[in-house]
Amino acid sequence: MMLLYHLWLSPHCRKVRLMLGEKQLPFETRIQKTWDRDESFLALNPTGEVPVLVDEDGNRVCGSQPICEYLDEMYGDQPLIGTGAVMRAEVRRLIDWFDVKFNEEVGINLVEEKIMKRFLGLGEPSSSAVRAGGRNIHTHLGYIDWLAERRTWLAGEDLTLADLTAAAHLSCVDYIGDVPWDEHPEAKDWYARIKSRPSFRPILGDHIPGAPPPRHYADLDF
Amino acid sequence: MMLLYHLWLSPHCRKVRLMLGEKQLPFETRIQKTWDRDESFLALNPTGEVPVLVDEDGNRVCGSQPICEYLDEMYGDQPLIGTGAVMRAEVRRLIDWFDVKFNEEVGINLVEEKIMKRFLGLGEPSSSAVRAGGRNIHTHLGYIDWLAERRTWLAGEDLTLADLTAAAHLSCVDYIGDVPWDEHPEAKDWYARIKSRPSFRPILGDHIPGAPPPRHYADLDF
Repeated sequence: MMLLYHLWLSPHCRKVRLMLGEKQLPFETRIQKTWDRDESFLALNPTGEVPVLVDEDGNRVCGSQPICEYLDEMYGDQPLIGTGAVMRAEVRRLIDWFDVKFNEEVGINLVEEKIMKRFLGLGEPSSSAVRAGGRNIHTHLGYIDWLAERRTWLAGEDLTLADLTAAAHLSCVDYIGDVPWDEHPEAKDWYARIKSRPSFRPILGDHIPGAPPPRHYADLDF
Repeated sequence: MMLLYHLWLSPHCRKVRLMLGEKQLPFETRIQKTWDRDESFLALNPTGEVPVLVDEDGNRVCGSQPICEYLDEMYGDQPLIGTGAVMRAEVRRLIDWFDVKFNEEVGINLVEEKIMKRFLGLGEPSSSAVRAGGRNIHTHLGYIDWLAERRTWLAGEDLTLADLTAAAHLSCVDYIGDVPWDEHPEAKDWYARIKSRPSFRPILGDHIPGAPPPRHYADLDF
């Protein structure tokens, strides 16, 4: 069986979990505390970061986008990075949007400040970072509103890795209750559709000891 | 003809220029001052960032990795992201290494601090950032040494986008004379091989008004 090294509230790891779920590939998970030095893990991935996937053949793949590209090439009945170079470019543009821009402007400011800092004993969250994250999330939800008004899924007619990536990032912020869903009805409707997919069930079951999610987090009718 | 919106000292833009050069695809360039608000450019790429490529068919592709994946799929006689899913995973792992890790640990600390801040009137470079960049670059050159001792090119026997990406990032730091080549002979030998390729010539011809490169920058025998 495949083995995924991950962390619960890492959006990049959740993206891979969703991809594996959509591909209906069974996998085991192992939590890798990337803040502790672990020589055997560094031998697997010299950056020391998650996600890392070890395939059944023993192939190891590092990083969320390389892993998802690999899975889409290897297990390809229904491509999730889109069909044709032009569509794939659009899917990858949106993936970059969430993996880089959303992560920097929202995820790090909210999830890392409020959760990771506390767990690692790095002090109180910075109130200016939290305020910035809370402001910035509206731009991103507004962009999802805009896309969802024009397309069935974020990149076009079909569900793609762009949807899974956006939902992975939002799900981490939703775990701490910081997504203003009610102000963004189209984004909320899109997220409700993703949330009801079987691939999402394990994500909704995540429960970090000492930091439980709000009640609406796992609720399909939120 | 294709049109590339870019900036001179952006490693992500240089990566695309090298990819286009290796594919022998003719293209025009347009400098996009991403710090000035430009509605027509925002319509092309809502992040407002470069690189953006407009293909001959009018397809626009945003972001260095989506552009390079697109070019490799569309103009594919000699794939530069590798052959087979396992090799592509290794190429993409190394691309991520330089686009994310090198960029954060070295490029931003040196090139953005020393050049971009000055051009944008954002004050003096932070001496602690510059010191960190100067320390961190040894880790990265050491990793290139290690790979170059074991492989012909960074990802294996063939030149790939991993080499182009690493060279694009290093070339920006070399433009300000901050690469300690003499302490890393294998990395230097690898870079000399890349530097002598026709695709690299336009990069070596870059000359930013008011910030000329050191003499060794364009010298193939540096």
